[in-house]
Amino acid sequence: MVQGNRKIFLSEQEIPREWYNIQADLPKPLPPPLNPATNEPITPDMLSPIFPMNLIEQEVSTERWIKIPDEVLEKLLLWRPSPLCRAYGLEKFLGTPARIYYKNEGISPPGSHKPNTAIAQAYYNKVFGTKRLTTETGAGQWGSALSFACNQFGLEVKVYMVRVSYDQKPYRRIMMEAWGGRCVPSPSPDTHAGRVYLKDNLDHPGSLGIAISEAIEDAVNSKNTKYSLGSVLNHVLMHQTIIGLETEKQLKIAGEYPDVVIGCAGGGSNFAGIAFPFIRDKIHGKDIRIIAVEPTSCPTLTKGPYVYDFGDTARTTPLLPMNSIGHQFVPAPIHAGGLRYHGMAPLVSRLLQDGLIEAKAYAQLETFQAGIHFARTEGFIPAPETDHAIACVIDEAVKAKEEGKEKVILMNWSGHGVIDLASYDAYLSGKLHDYIMPDEDIEQLVCELKRC
Amino acid sequence: MVQGNRKIFLSEQEIPREWYNIQADLPKPLPPPLNPATNEPITPDMLSPIFPMNLIEQEVSTERWIKIPDEVLEKLLLWRPSPLCRAYGLEKFLGTPARIYYKNEGISPPGSHKPNTAIAQAYYNKVFGTKRLTTETGAGQWGSALSFACNQFGLEVKVYMVRVSYDQKPYRRIMMEAWGGRCVPSPSPDTHAGRVYLKDNLDHPGSLGIAISEAIEDAVNSKNTKYSLGSVLNHVLMHQTIIGLETEKQLKIAGEYPDVVIGCAGGGSNFAGIAFPFIRDKIHGKDIRIIAVEPTSCPTLTKGPYVYDFGDTARTTPLLPMNSIGHQFVPAPIHAGGLRYHGMAPLVSRLLQDGLIEAKAYAQLETFQAGIHFARTEGFIPAPETDHAIACVIDEAVKAKEEGKEKVILMNWSGHGVIDLASYDAYLSGKLHDYIMPDEDIEQLVCELKRC
Repeated sequence: MVQGNRKIFLSEQEIPREWYNIQADLPKPLPPPLNPATNEPITPDMLSPIFPMNLIEQEVSTERWIKIPDEVLEKLLLWRPSPLCRAYGLEKFLGTPARIYYKNEGISPPGSHKPNTAIAQAYYNKVFGTKRLTTETGAGQWGSALSFACNQFGLEVKVYMVRVSYDQKPYRRIMMEAWGGRCVPSPSPDTHAGRVYLKDNLDHPGSLGIAISEAIEDAVNSKNTKYSLGSVLNHVLMHQTIIGLETEKQLKIAGEYPDVVIGCAGGGSNFAGIAFPFIRDKIHGKDIRIIAVEPTSCPTLTKGPYVYDFGDTARTTPLLPMNSIGHQFVPAPIHAGGLRYHGMAPLVSRLLQDGLIEAKAYAQLETFQAGIHFARTEGFIPAPETDHAIACVIDEAVKAKEEGKEKVILMNWSGHGVIDLASYDAYLSGKLHDYIMPDEDIEQLVCELKRC
Repeated sequence: MVQGNRKIFLSEQEIPREWYNIQADLPKPLPPPLNPATNEPITPDMLSPIFPMNLIEQEVSTERWIKIPDEVLEKLLLWRPSPLCRAYGLEKFLGTPARIYYKNEGISPPGSHKPNTAIAQAYYNKVFGTKRLTTETGAGQWGSALSFACNQFGLEVKVYMVRVSYDQKPYRRIMMEAWGGRCVPSPSPDTHAGRVYLKDNLDHPGSLGIAISEAIEDAVNSKNTKYSLGSVLNHVLMHQTIIGLETEKQLKIAGEYPDVVIGCAGGGSNFAGIAFPFIRDKIHGKDIRIIAVEPTSCPTLTKGPYVYDFGDTARTTPLLPMNSIGHQFVPAPIHAGGLRYHGMAPLVSRLLQDGLIEAKAYAQLETFQAGIHFARTEGFIPAPETDHAIACVIDEAVKAKEEGKEKVILMNWSGHGVIDLASYDAYLSGKLHDYIMPDEDIEQLVCELKRC
């Protein structure tokens, strides 16, 4: 009667010792980021005012396996290896012959996959001699993960948090402060970029674009200070591959191999984390589907073109080769704050071009319905971002039922929704809406992009 | 360099199959609860309007080991066995030779140890034929745990939540609703007990005493409905012993045995959960200290007499033999909502009388300071209740340093503080105060008690 294999644990000794760098296996190499002023490739030196050289080296490396330093492993062991869980309850509810596995990244101190890279970035900065990091955060997942990581390595951190989130969602700000981080609402009076917006409107709600500009300006102008980014870049995605590498080992223990791998995708890091090791198998001939899931309100992969675009609204970053719906894009106010980014990681975008991954988009209401199904079967309440992956898992499991197929479905359960309960309240009381980008808007954005 | 034993996991196959019932090993048997009208012992029959007979049997059983039903184990496996963690970071910060272990009960879906008994109670009610449960909740930990458990077994649940918490702390209410539970502010218009208070004041802030009266009235007057309590009673404490039984196995794997076992104590269930299996060893001669930690604002064990008192303010329960500072006691507004109960579980009270456990009280500011130390060393942010245990752990670890002794300190990390971040905000911004009950107030309460 008692299921003996609901959760598959790895011992601490079994934690992966290397990250997987998918750049070594890409069918076509990644196009370089470009300097917007010259349209020439960016050189590592040009990134050195904002990133430490050891991370820039990782960003451009094509080594397949990169050793995880012992000091990083030691911190990751605070919560890793994370359990791989069989969703018996959800399977039963759906009446599916599919076997559903979810990798629970919600058990980390900040409650998501984000600290996998935050810990690594804090470490490399520490080794490089950085004393202080700056970053931006929207809803606060990344800012809290970096505060946690900087606290572990004794670095100072300043987080520029979009003011509307700072005011409306204080829990993430408090979390940062509990770990000794400093968090200010953006636009702030502390930078030139911030003051420009405050001059016209002291209550300016802010945006991720403004916050990025502030964090970069601060890093460039302050002593021993660097900037840190929580997704999109190659090294960030690589740090997340520990998720998929652990999962490979865990599935082997269970005697399973996935037919489908599913992750939600905002900037691309949690999707990459679970998917990249399996994409390697696919490149080597394995028959496996890999699905990135995004919101219909921000359909970067499903509707955006593959172009060179800025990483931020304020046009301060290099041009990145990626799927984008335009750096001027203003996302609808969906609750999955981590999926409201206009672009997609160059690596994930490249894999879509090469036909190695698929992309699907879901509207908000369906994702919250999926999250409630999950909470009422498996117990754990997922983050609104994670709900997107669950919606796709449910679709695939129902399809397996219709086809009478015993499929193995694997998903990245990227984080818990305990701090996002207000969004479930809005859903359960019928106050949420769907946002689906009209095709005309997409066409107009694409048209603007081609001019950029 | 990499620590290989930060977390000790048990496999699912190693989960304990029996609960430990300390009633079998008590030096003196527990005095019976009394009927307040007659001062005669309560019989099982008299409890049957509010509890199912299978749980009443557990309440009075003196069998040492009680089999955990497979159906209960299957649900506990959603998150159990929970990891036992070595607090290397905290040890290093304190510079102590002590080895500190914490049992992480914060990983359950509601985030605390509470579902260990909620699952068991929902199961036994289901088997008994109960269709619906009622309960009260203060800050919401228990109400959310019972909602989760009832959802797992397909029972309806109605939670009467103290109105001031219902209004000020909506996250726990939303959590209950996410699991399909119904939560109403108490006093409510749904019961006679509630209407009495609403008549005079539509905005009555409520109290745990009123909420208990409402939940019991509802259970007694509704079809197929029983009442459920989250602490204090013998069977509730027994369901929590799975914590200590797992820990015994985990410490054996680590080759350790504790010198000190520490848990915070409100009603007594999380303390009992980790402590009872080790108290058994102590009864059989083992040299081990067991410390229950409470707030100075509600010093039940450290200042309250051992008497017969009501379990609730409204005097609807039997008289229980316990340490109490009086059922009329109005607790100071400390943030550790789970530690504001006027009484203490009869089993825990009895063990204090028999000299098998010690009790210590800590003031609020010291506990939050301890919680911040923990968050900044081990990463995880503890619940304000858990902070009490941590404050005591730190004291014991510092003492070990002063004495130059290699002590093993074990604590129950009863829950995470992610929904309690507002209390950390108040602490970090200097807005919290200490509440220490003056001795005169205690004397007056004790004097009133002796008359009851």
